Amino acid sequence: MRIAMVGLGRMGANMVRRLLRDGHECVVHDLSKEAVQQMVAEGAEGAGSLKELVDALAPPRTVWLMLPAAVTGNTVTDLLDLLEPGDAIVDGGNSSYRDDIDRAEVAAVHNIDYVDCGTSGGVWGLERGYCLMIGGPDRAVDRLDPVFASLAPGVGAAGRTPGRTGEVSRSEQGYLHCGPSGAGHFVKMVHNGIEYAIMAAYAEGLNVIRSAGVGKHQEKADAETAPLREPRYYPYDGIDLAEVTEVWRRGSVIGSWLLDLTAEAMAADPQLEQFSGRVSDSGEGRWTSIAAIEEGVSAPLLTAALYSRFASRGSELFADKVESAQRKEFGGHDEKPAAS
Amino acid sequence: MRIAMVGLGRMGANMVRRLLRDGHECVVHDLSKEAVQQMVAEGAEGAGSLKELVDALAPPRTVWLMLPAAVTGNTVTDLLDLLEPGDAIVDGGNSSYRDDIDRAEVAAVHNIDYVDCGTSGGVWGLERGYCLMIGGPDRAVDRLDPVFASLAPGVGAAGRTPGRTGEVSRSEQGYLHCGPSGAGHFVKMVHNGIEYAIMAAYAEGLNVIRSAGVGKHQEKADAETAPLREPRYYPYDGIDLAEVTEVWRRGSVIGSWLLDLTAEAMAADPQLEQFSGRVSDSGEGRWTSIAAIEEGVSAPLLTAALYSRFASRGSELFADKVESAQRKEFGGHDEKPAAS
Amino acid sequence: MRIAMVGLGRMGANMVRRLLRDGHECVVHDLSKEAVQQMVAEGAEGAGSLKELVDALAPPRTVWLMLPAAVTGNTVTDLLDLLEPGDAIVDGGNSSYRDDIDRAEVAAVHNIDYVDCGTSGGVWGLERGYCLMIGGPDRAVDRLDPVFASLAPGVGAAGRTPGRTGEVSRSEQGYLHCGPSGAGHFVKMVHNGIEYAIMAAYAEGLNVIRSAGVGKHQEKADAETAPLREPRYYPYDGIDLAEVTEVWRRGSVIGSWLLDLTAEAMAADPQLEQFSGRVSDSGEGRWTSIAAIEEGVSAPLLTAALYSRFASRGSELFADKVESAQRKEFGGHDEKPAAS
Amino acid sequence: MRIAMVGLGRMGANMVRRLLRDGHECVVHDLSKEAVQQMVAEGAEGAGSLKELVDALAPPRTVWLMLPAAVTGNTVTDLLDLLEPGDAIVDGGNSSYRDDIDRAEVAAVHNIDYVDCGTSGGVWGLERGYCLMIGGPDRAVDRLDPVFASLAPGVGAAGRTPGRTGEVSRSEQGYLHCGPSGAGHFVKMVHNGIEYAIMAAYAEGLNVIRSAGVGKHQEKADAETAPLREPRYYPYDGIDLAEVTEVWRRGSVIGSWLLDLTAEAMAADPQLEQFSGRVSDSGEGRWTSIAAIEEGVSAPLLTAALYSRFASRGSELFADKVESAQRKEFGGHDEKPAAS
Repeated sequence: MRIAMVGLGRMGANMVRRLLRDGHECVVHDLSKEAVQQMVAEGAEGAGSLKELVDALAPPRTVWLMLPAAVTGNTVTDLLDLLEPGDAIVDGGNSSYRDDIDRAEVAAVHNIDYVDCGTSGGVWGLERGYCLMIGGPDRAVDRLDPVFASLAPGVGAAGRTPGRTGEVSRSEQGYLHCGPSGAGHFVKMVHNGIEYAIMAAYAEGLNVIRSAGVGKHQEKADAETAPLREPRYYPYDGIDLAEVTEVWRRGSVIGSWLLDLTAEAMAADPQLEQFSGRVSDSGEGRWTSIAAIEEGVSAPLLTAALYSRFASRGSELFADKVESAQRKEFGGHDEKPAAS
Repeated sequence: MRIAMVGLGRMGANMVRRLLRDGHECVVHDLSKEAVQQMVAEGAEGAGSLKELVDALAPPRTVWLMLPAAVTGNTVTDLLDLLEPGDAIVDGGNSSYRDDIDRAEVAAVHNIDYVDCGTSGGVWGLERGYCLMIGGPDRAVDRLDPVFASLAPGVGAAGRTPGRTGEVSRSEQGYLHCGPSGAGHFVKMVHNGIEYAIMAAYAEGLNVIRSAGVGKHQEKADAETAPLREPRYYPYDGIDLAEVTEVWRRGSVIGSWLLDLTAEAMAADPQLEQFSGRVSDSGEGRWTSIAAIEEGVSAPLLTAALYSRFASRGSELFADKVESAQRKEFGGHDEKPAAS
Repeated sequence: MRIAMVGLGRMGANMVRRLLRDGHECVVHDLSKEAVQQMVAEGAEGAGSLKELVDALAPPRTVWLMLPAAVTGNTVTDLLDLLEPGDAIVDGGNSSYRDDIDRAEVAAVHNIDYVDCGTSGGVWGLERGYCLMIGGPDRAVDRLDPVFASLAPGVGAAGRTPGRTGEVSRSEQGYLHCGPSGAGHFVKMVHNGIEYAIMAAYAEGLNVIRSAGVGKHQEKADAETAPLREPRYYPYDGIDLAEVTEVWRRGSVIGSWLLDLTAEAMAADPQLEQFSGRVSDSGEGRWTSIAAIEEGVSAPLLTAALYSRFASRGSELFADKVESAQRKEFGGHDEKPAAS
Repeated sequence: MRIAMVGLGRMGANMVRRLLRDGHECVVHDLSKEAVQQMVAEGAEGAGSLKELVDALAPPRTVWLMLPAAVTGNTVTDLLDLLEPGDAIVDGGNSSYRDDIDRAEVAAVHNIDYVDCGTSGGVWGLERGYCLMIGGPDRAVDRLDPVFASLAPGVGAAGRTPGRTGEVSRSEQGYLHCGPSGAGHFVKMVHNGIEYAIMAAYAEGLNVIRSAGVGKHQEKADAETAPLREPRYYPYDGIDLAEVTEVWRRGSVIGSWLLDLTAEAMAADPQLEQFSGRVSDSGEGRWTSIAAIEEGVSAPLLTAALYSRFASRGSELFADKVESAQRKEFGGHDEKPAAS
């Protein structure tokens, strides 16, 4: 079918490519003219403005947005003026599901369908396909089924789950209509919360293996530092972490795509020396923990993963100073220098 | 090659089957005569005692143990009396790596090689192969290479990690000599610590999705309970969790074997009604957190996953009572009944 | 001075008493006529409606609200119609500081001062005085200084902090103008977040002492449960927790008012048998963790304390079931009954 | 009574002073002759060696050790050769309770009583008295009662707990016989675990208040960073933390001695600029978490406090690098520099 795409960054451009491959027609727009020209060279139609973009489609139109979360809101507002009743806007970016709920209410006043589409797959999506978590009105979601089907990985991307029979469901093709407006981004949000935790689980475990030789490097005892009771149980200097991540890829319970990627990163740079360890977070992890809290549901790992990202960027410094100050007050303890 | 297996439970029996399939000769022993007879029926040689078992092998012998951790120690002691210098014992069970270190020292006095082999794969290992994490002396580990190769999944079980070239390594076949005695179980221990955390990550995330409709069921406000500030953002009753786990299997960043299994479980029993929620732990998760602590390395997720298992079995009850008592003391708050 | 109080629950009534004792005049209102009559009997003036209450004061008026958070908003709206420019509303309840920010904006349009006053002290406040954390415009906060001074504990409630000299500050008397609207409730919110964590710290520690005899009750070993490696180090059955909390009250680093209360509760009911362990939370703990997350600041203990309250009310049940289901899938493990 | 003290560091010297004040006779020894001379100048008797020290006492002797944990073991071994049946050794240092259990067994063979005495009070103990948590045989603990009573703060250090009547107990004077050997250090260990958590609770809370102005410093939006949804709710730049800690000291639920010390530290150095934030840990926090894990009891806050100390010293760096590497693999995300 014919569809418009606004935002031709890493994600948007690859999604257009995947749609073109499957025979869809794409009208594309981006603030960067080079980005538009590139996609035109690959078979898309370019549009110099949102107005041009909308005019290039026939009703019921579909405009798919792949924009930074901070920009999406204004673009939606602009589009609501340009579109007609029965048209649809799809937000495929990293918006908060709360924005979806708010925007869908406004769009509904114009009788425009607002569809939120949480999109996982990263830079690999062009090749592997995108996992799509969709929220919004049936009318638009059903009309867009061919587009979702082209973007999603398809049923062949994984073996059939034992117990599932009959016709292949949307979920088995890699896309799912999760519920009303925002439900797609809600599920995608939690997906990312889980992602943070799985990443941190491997990271912590590898760190524990990496320090398994501390028994050989027992620090000098002093009044403040208790010696390791049994240093003989920490003799493992230099277990090869790249090899460990590789061996876990086959037959183990913890095999995963994230492990594959970790093994790849460690094969290339076993000590990860190119990294400084400042881990960004992009919103969904925060929102997942906030949702857990507001729902009254415990999510200790999801939140610990988030906090460890904050801490990687130095957020705990002042709190640590408070503790050092307290120790000095009650015990006269001076801080130890970094070397010890 | 010819090898002895002691312990024909779920794991041991399947490992014998996998070895027989690959042309190895297996002499087997178990306290259960039925278990021995069953394996004899499938092509193994039975032994009525450890003595018979040892006599059925020619030096350098290999006796592989797949026993409950609580029983392994005594069996090793018995075997040290029966075996000869140059023979090898392999502990493939869930022993603490500390026991390996202790036992290997004793075995070395007898010039017997003690090999620890952390084994992942569970009930699926017969079909998928076992991921093997091995510690101990080179002499025995190298001699046993054909056995490890038969038990492991083999290189075809996963695509080659980009950046790896040349001859296929042991790790790429699914087994790895991690280091000296105990290193195999150490790596397996951390593997299980990670496993607990990945399991909990999915579990927490699904729980957050499951409660996404709380805005529709706002509790009555009272002096102690603050109302949800924005109930309109929690309207999602009944998102289909079986479908969500299914859609994540294709193209998403969080695809994994544990997710495949979760999707299978939820396809069969979407509300998981057959479970009471008491989650066991088998030792490795505890030891991983203890190792982190003794190494001075943070592992907040791994420990949170462990604690959540303890809590699932009621370990926090008294602590909760302390908090209720404190609230009553300073605020006159009575506990609310379960219904509210 | 002359002041109106709306809401004569546990907190409001005692605050009126404390004000009356110090010579202030109080006009009081509550939906319960009995509550009004009771305070009239103790020296306050009663008002049958908000209108009567406002009419009983001369400008610039002050109406102090001690209401459930869910009711405060509507009362503020009603008062904005009744009050005149220059008057002030004080919210001394457990409102979210966000509501303060929103309401203060509306009140400012009417040139009415909106003051938020986080109030700690619970049922003990009548006797000990209330710790007051105040936000809002200087004009009103300064005018109300005598009221705050009467409600607060006063400088004698604690020894002077070494290093503080000169005139006694408001903070040294137990009240503080923290900043603009909402700043008082923000600081009170974090205060409660800290409170949850301190309570949980004692609770967890006592629970660890309580289980220090597990080495004497070693469970039967099986394939899934690793035995305690060194049961000899857990021989302490029956350490007397009431005595432990008592001894910590004198000379230890962890002495505190919450410890005093814990000791009192345990002296009366050493096993805390009257409690079921369902711990409520009243909003501030949630909001503190949300603030940490939105600020990008780690608060692992504050959030862990909150999650442990959620868990005490069963919020983790479904997540636990997911883990049991996963264990059954990959390892064939059945759940163990509660008895084992 | 007459008692020997070995180890005249900060703690040992002050304990001798407190004993001398109360009329006890103290024979003292330390590797530092200056330390011995100093105490002799204050009224103690000096001993040049353990032998001299032992000879200066009459049976049944008591030798109290206040030594670094790493040195205590050898000193005990030496003393067992010098002492006679019926004598007693008291370990008042920061030993692991497990060492107590081991050493008490050896001492019992010599019919020497081994008493462990966990000691809280820090540099303030001379003035405030020490909170003593004692383990070991009744014979020695009862004989030493006058010494414990002199070292402890005494009943006047806190008001009587409501509900306690009759004769004042040991616990009400600030010392407690907790149980058999090791029980004193076990209770002290948990005490310190709680201490870490209470310290961290204040530290985290103050950090949340400190960042309450982030809404005014909204970072530039980009594809990876979601903007703060409602920056208007984070307007509080510069809330005065020294004032906040001061106001909480009077009338609030979270008043404590650690808060008093925090207020003192912040009054002197409001930004805590003299500290780098590297927080040491001295053993007990680690052992508390290990005990929780081995007992199968959740202690999420106690462990989080410990991990945050590890992290303050950089232990998470490699784990953070793993996450950065993973993000680069799946999303092509580069790390952001520290400035952003």
